[in-house]
Amino acid sequence: METIDHVRLNEDGSKLIILDQTQLPNRMEYLEISEAEELYEAIQKLRVRGAPCIGIFAGFAMYVLAQRLDQSTYESFKKEFHEKAAYLNASRPTAVNLSWALRRMEGVVTAQAGRAPAEILPLLRAEAQAILEEDIAMCKAISEHGLGLLKEGDCVLTHCNAGPIATSRYGTAIGPLILGAERGMHLKAFSDETRPLLQGARLTSWELDRAGVDVTLICDNMASMVMKNGWVQFCFVGCDRVAANGDTANKIGTSGVAILAKHYGIPFYVLGPTSTIDMSCPTGDDIKIELRQPDEIKEMWYREPMAPGTVKCFNPAFDVTDHSLISGIITEKGICRAPYEQSLKKLFE
Amino acid sequence: METIDHVRLNEDGSKLIILDQTQLPNRMEYLEISEAEELYEAIQKLRVRGAPCIGIFAGFAMYVLAQRLDQSTYESFKKEFHEKAAYLNASRPTAVNLSWALRRMEGVVTAQAGRAPAEILPLLRAEAQAILEEDIAMCKAISEHGLGLLKEGDCVLTHCNAGPIATSRYGTAIGPLILGAERGMHLKAFSDETRPLLQGARLTSWELDRAGVDVTLICDNMASMVMKNGWVQFCFVGCDRVAANGDTANKIGTSGVAILAKHYGIPFYVLGPTSTIDMSCPTGDDIKIELRQPDEIKEMWYREPMAPGTVKCFNPAFDVTDHSLISGIITEKGICRAPYEQSLKKLFE
Repeated sequence: METIDHVRLNEDGSKLIILDQTQLPNRMEYLEISEAEELYEAIQKLRVRGAPCIGIFAGFAMYVLAQRLDQSTYESFKKEFHEKAAYLNASRPTAVNLSWALRRMEGVVTAQAGRAPAEILPLLRAEAQAILEEDIAMCKAISEHGLGLLKEGDCVLTHCNAGPIATSRYGTAIGPLILGAERGMHLKAFSDETRPLLQGARLTSWELDRAGVDVTLICDNMASMVMKNGWVQFCFVGCDRVAANGDTANKIGTSGVAILAKHYGIPFYVLGPTSTIDMSCPTGDDIKIELRQPDEIKEMWYREPMAPGTVKCFNPAFDVTDHSLISGIITEKGICRAPYEQSLKKLFE
Repeated sequence: METIDHVRLNEDGSKLIILDQTQLPNRMEYLEISEAEELYEAIQKLRVRGAPCIGIFAGFAMYVLAQRLDQSTYESFKKEFHEKAAYLNASRPTAVNLSWALRRMEGVVTAQAGRAPAEILPLLRAEAQAILEEDIAMCKAISEHGLGLLKEGDCVLTHCNAGPIATSRYGTAIGPLILGAERGMHLKAFSDETRPLLQGARLTSWELDRAGVDVTLICDNMASMVMKNGWVQFCFVGCDRVAANGDTANKIGTSGVAILAKHYGIPFYVLGPTSTIDMSCPTGDDIKIELRQPDEIKEMWYREPMAPGTVKCFNPAFDVTDHSLISGIITEKGICRAPYEQSLKKLFE
C-alpha cells in the first residue's frame, strides 16, 4: 500500500505539509503551512486529528516555528520557543499527546542551555522525526500482535477510527488489517459508521478501501445482524484511556459492540499504545466522559434539521467498556489478558 | 394531548386530508387529495407510512375514489372499483395492511351484488371508518396493557417509530407513554435516532415531545451508556412480523437493543397487534429481510457524501430479535410470555 504521509516536512524543511482530514473522503487535499496561526488552526479545526497524529504534528510544527524565531541569543530563542509551544498547546487543551509532544520538544531546548540556536535546530528536527518514527514502530508492533490472531479470510468489525491518519502509519485498531493486506493476506472488515461524527464512514472505510482490505460500511445498529450472520471473527477497537483494571474509554458505542460480541461469542480486543493505559485511574468510573453539543446529532443533514428543535439530546463522546467484556488489550509490548490489574501492571515493571 | 388526525375526510367527504409525513418534523403540512394518482403517490412517497396507517388511508381513499366512478350500473361500478383498488395496491407491494384494507373495501362491494352504487357508497364510508376505529381501539388496548407495566417516573427506551402517525392514535410501542401522559403521569423516554432513515429522530421524538412525554434523543450507539447509567426501566419496540416461536422482525437495530437490555437486566417488550403474528412462519429464520440501497447510508448528508463512493454498504431494513431476548409480546389481547409457541398459539384459539 502506498503510504499516505499525512504529516511531513517540505523539501527544505521550512514548512509542514498536511493532509486536510476535514476534506475526506471526498478530496485528498494537502496544505503547506508554517505560520503559527495556521498550525494552531490545523489542530483546532481537526485538519489533523487522532491523538498520536496531533503529537507528531506538534513536533514538526515546533521545528518549523523554531526556524523563524529570534536566534540572536539562547535566552531569547528559548523564551520565544516556549511562547509558541504554549500557544499551540491551547489549540486543543484536552489532547494529551499534544502537550506531551510539546514538552518533549521544549526538553530539547532546555537540555542545550547556552548553545547557539542554529545548532539546536537540527536537534529539534531529529526529535520531531524520532516522535514520528517511534509512533510508526509502536503502531507496527501493535499491528503485528493483532495480526498474529488473524488467519486468511478472517473478518474484523471495528468502530470509529484508529487507523493510519489518526496515528503515523498502520494505526492501532485497523493496523493488523492494513499490515495483513500489505503482506498479501485477504482480510475483511466491517466498519461501523460511528454516529454522530461518522469517523467510520468518512475515515476508516476510506483507509481500509485504499489499503486493499475488503471493507463493508454499516450503520452502528447493523452490527448485531452482521455478527448474528456469522460474518465477524473478531472485534478490534482503539482506546482513548484504559483504567488500571482494564475498563476502556473509547468512542461512544464501543461498549455496545463489546456486549454484542460477548452475546455472539466473538472475541473483542482493544488495541492501543501503553501510553494510553492510565495506572493512576483505578476503574472506568473514574474516567470523566465529555458531553458534546446536540447539533451534532440533529443538524448535519441535507436541507434541514432531522429532529425537532425542542427535543433534548444526550450526546456523549465516549463510553466505558467494562473489562469483563474485553478478550485482550493489545499494546506494542504484546497482548494483556485478564486479570488486567496484574497484566497491565506488568507492562510498567 | 391534541389528536393529530393525520388521515381524515374533508367536510363533505369527497376528499382525503393527510398530514404529509415527509415534511416532519420541520412542518405540519396537510394535503387535500382525491385523484387516484395523488392517492397512489402519497403512499409511494411515504407521505403516509406505517402499516396500520396505510391500511386506514387505503379504506378512505377507496371511498373517495368510489364517489367518482361510473355509477350507472352495479357491474360497471364494481369493475371500476376493482381497477382502482388494484392500482392503489401497486403503490407499495410489500405493505400487508394496504392489500388487506383494499380487499376489505372490495368485500363490501361484492357483498352488495346488484345494488345501486349510490346505496353502496355509505357502506363504503362506514367500512373505512370501521377500519380506523378498530385500529384506534386496538392501539388503545395495547397501550393499556403496556401502561400497566409502568409506574410514575419510569423511563422507556424505544427504537424506530411505532407511534400515532404510523397507526391511528396512541400507536403501539410508544402508545403506553402517550396514554400515560394523557392521564397526567410523568413518564420519560429515550428515542434511538434509528439510522439510516432516522424515524426515531424525525418522528418518534417529535410525537413524544408533542404528547408531553419527557423525551431525549440519542444516536443508536448511545443506548448502551444510557442503560448502564440506570436511566432506562423498560425497552418497548414495535414489530413488523412475529414468528410462531416469538422471534420478532422489526427495524434494523432492534436485536441489538434487546441484547443490551438483557446484558443490563432491563425488560424488553415487543408491542403490536395480533395481526402481526404470523403463525405460518415457524421461526425468525423464515423471515426474509429486505436489503436497501447504499445511498441511504452514504448520501443523506449536508453538502456532500459522507463515505467513499467505492466502499460497499450492507443496508438491511430489519433484523430478527430472538425470542429468548424478549420479556413479553404485548398485543391488544394482553401480554404473552415465554414459551411463546404456546402463548402466541392461545391468542388464535
